[in-house]
Amino acid sequence: ARPRVGYFYTGKTGTELLGEKVKNITVRHYQSRPIVVQESSSVYDAICTMFLEDVGTLFVTDKQTTLVGVLSRKDLLRASLGKQALESIPVSIIMTRMPNITVCKEDDLIIEVAKKLINKQIDGLPIVQDVDYGSGYEVIGRITKTNITSLLVDLANEETI
Amino acid sequence: ARPRVGYFYTGKTGTELLGEKVKNITVRHYQSRPIVVQESSSVYDAICTMFLEDVGTLFVTDKQTTLVGVLSRKDLLRASLGKQALESIPVSIIMTRMPNITVCKEDDLIIEVAKKLINKQIDGLPIVQDVDYGSGYEVIGRITKTNITSLLVDLANEETI
Repeated sequence: ARPRVGYFYTGKTGTELLGEKVKNITVRHYQSRPIVVQESSSVYDAICTMFLEDVGTLFVTDKQTTLVGVLSRKDLLRASLGKQALESIPVSIIMTRMPNITVCKEDDLIIEVAKKLINKQIDGLPIVQDVDYGSGYEVIGRITKTNITSLLVDLANEETI
Repeated sequence: ARPRVGYFYTGKTGTELLGEKVKNITVRHYQSRPIVVQESSSVYDAICTMFLEDVGTLFVTDKQTTLVGVLSRKDLLRASLGKQALESIPVSIIMTRMPNITVCKEDDLIIEVAKKLINKQIDGLPIVQDVDYGSGYEVIGRITKTNITSLLVDLANEETI
């Protein structure tokens, strides 16, 4: 075989190199602050929190700050179609519960998160770490389609740096 | 100056080539079907349509199918906090109205749409074309952060094709 010395055309295209670059970008680089409500909060309070914080996904914790549920705008809108007063419905009734919540960790690759968001048709994931006591997760961040869109804009802008 | 003949190392990195590639991808390649309600519809009907169609943004048209407004999940959630029955509020009261709507066209670049979504903090844009009669726009598509996320997944996957 021919010895592999000197400069070579590797046969890699720009997007192949992109693939390699994207494979090094982890959740840690593009996370947002998590917004959390207690499981005893009302649907009304959760909707107010969503507006005050301007987010599309809320995480629900128990008194030990362990993740117990997730609330999307869809969950809250669905509740608003009912006849019951929103102040009287606790979020624990309408939230998506553990273990049916898709989570990620800070060292996960963004591209894997992007695939999960598409495949599961959700807007965002909680970034979690194991709790020191007992079992379960503590929420330390949030990653959404907004973060993914920012990443694409950054990648496309990089050539002008 | 040195003549530009033969093979060169162009000094371009993978992401520079990505920049060039992304600059050729237009809205046409990543659009979704638009979901439309009439301006006389109630907020209740709009929320139901949002669930039936599983979208986060609705477009509002007049009787001539001209774009007159946009409804986000946020707009509908805000209405649900009020005391009035959702069946009795027309969407025209709560929608974002022309000319305050950001639109795009099929030949616009995806990356420009991505920047608009980030800068204006919105989830999606209507894809429009000029109407044949009078002035205004007709809605022919929808592009959202979900489409942008799909694009990133496709770009990263391309090296395995």
